[in-house]
Amino acid sequence: MKLYIGNKNYSTWSLRPWILLAKLNISFDEVQLSLDTPQFYTALASVTPTQKVPCLIDGDITVWDSLAICEYINDTYLSGKAWPADPQDKANARSLAAEMHSGFPALRSEAPMNIRATRSLTLSEAAQQDLKRIEAIFAEQMTRFADQGGWLFGQYSIADAMFAPVVMRLKTYQLSFGEMAQQYVNHVLSCPALQQWIDAALEETEIVAADEAGEPC
Amino acid sequence: MKLYIGNKNYSTWSLRPWILLAKLNISFDEVQLSLDTPQFYTALASVTPTQKVPCLIDGDITVWDSLAICEYINDTYLSGKAWPADPQDKANARSLAAEMHSGFPALRSEAPMNIRATRSLTLSEAAQQDLKRIEAIFAEQMTRFADQGGWLFGQYSIADAMFAPVVMRLKTYQLSFGEMAQQYVNHVLSCPALQQWIDAALEETEIVAADEAGEPC
Repeated sequence: MKLYIGNKNYSTWSLRPWILLAKLNISFDEVQLSLDTPQFYTALASVTPTQKVPCLIDGDITVWDSLAICEYINDTYLSGKAWPADPQDKANARSLAAEMHSGFPALRSEAPMNIRATRSLTLSEAAQQDLKRIEAIFAEQMTRFADQGGWLFGQYSIADAMFAPVVMRLKTYQLSFGEMAQQYVNHVLSCPALQQWIDAALEETEIVAADEAGEPC
Repeated sequence: MKLYIGNKNYSTWSLRPWILLAKLNISFDEVQLSLDTPQFYTALASVTPTQKVPCLIDGDITVWDSLAICEYINDTYLSGKAWPADPQDKANARSLAAEMHSGFPALRSEAPMNIRATRSLTLSEAAQQDLKRIEAIFAEQMTRFADQGGWLFGQYSIADAMFAPVVMRLKTYQLSFGEMAQQYVNHVLSCPALQQWIDAALEETEIVAADEAGEPC
């Protein structure tokens, strides 16, 4: 199984399936390509119809898009265990994952993931609303699943994989949450699999200008 | 089971789970709210944490976001049959559905769904690229699944539900595709369940200014 990803410093979409695979100990080969380079498009031309990362090749099966890859991994390698077992929790987890997948546009465009940087940033009203909703999600899940494993639904799920990049953004732009929500942020940051991704990101030197935002501090 | 939706003329996200339910004959109650009115937010305040449509209430289960609702319906009422049975086709269908769910931002913002209108519009380069990709998807699927039922994967799937709104956009903005892709567009437009939605949209009179684009013709 081969997962095509972009720069670890910047590629939020790549991080999602990568962290799901890494956290749940599913072995895969990583093919890393530098975003926005001619090599990136050349390498992907024969691999995926969208020429975007992430893309998963598993034998003769090609899956593109972060959420579709997570669902595929869950179906194929995890017997459905990457969603909570309880139907209500599963419905909620899928709702949150999908909300992240298509939502929070202001926060995503104003505060790109940039793991190695530390920046200060003034967020628009819309981005602040996005952030408030994310804080509310984290706080609510930490309350509902207190002492059950530390993840959004107690045990690790695709919802956690989908929200991993936003935790990286909080760190870069020095944003902090109230106590309950921050508890989740700290739990995510203590995850060894994520730490591996961060370590690799810190060694990268390529700069993607479109993803550099805020003032260095 | 109650599905909260917005204006049928405008609400692309609402159309997706609605058409899945309607096409596959799953009975549900529809609660329609006019987008961007005070009543909309009041009605949703106690229903969904996002205060957005669509939202599905099924007993004590709440599911929000179009794709999560489709997955929930598939799990709960369709024994998984809303995705193709073949693993490779299922992976592709999920990829396409997810691509639609988070992608095509230029086309979506420049050419909002507006079923009752007929407009002319000059699309940006980015929106034209979006449209080209959609045409390629339709043409490829019609070639791969020729004479197998007329839908993207032969039989109706969540991928079809996800792409229904874009077919409505083509009609409004008088955009047409090459023969293979147009074959799919025509098939979608001939669907009685979609026709029901269109008929209701044509009777609506509310105007959402943000979703009015292009020049009347």
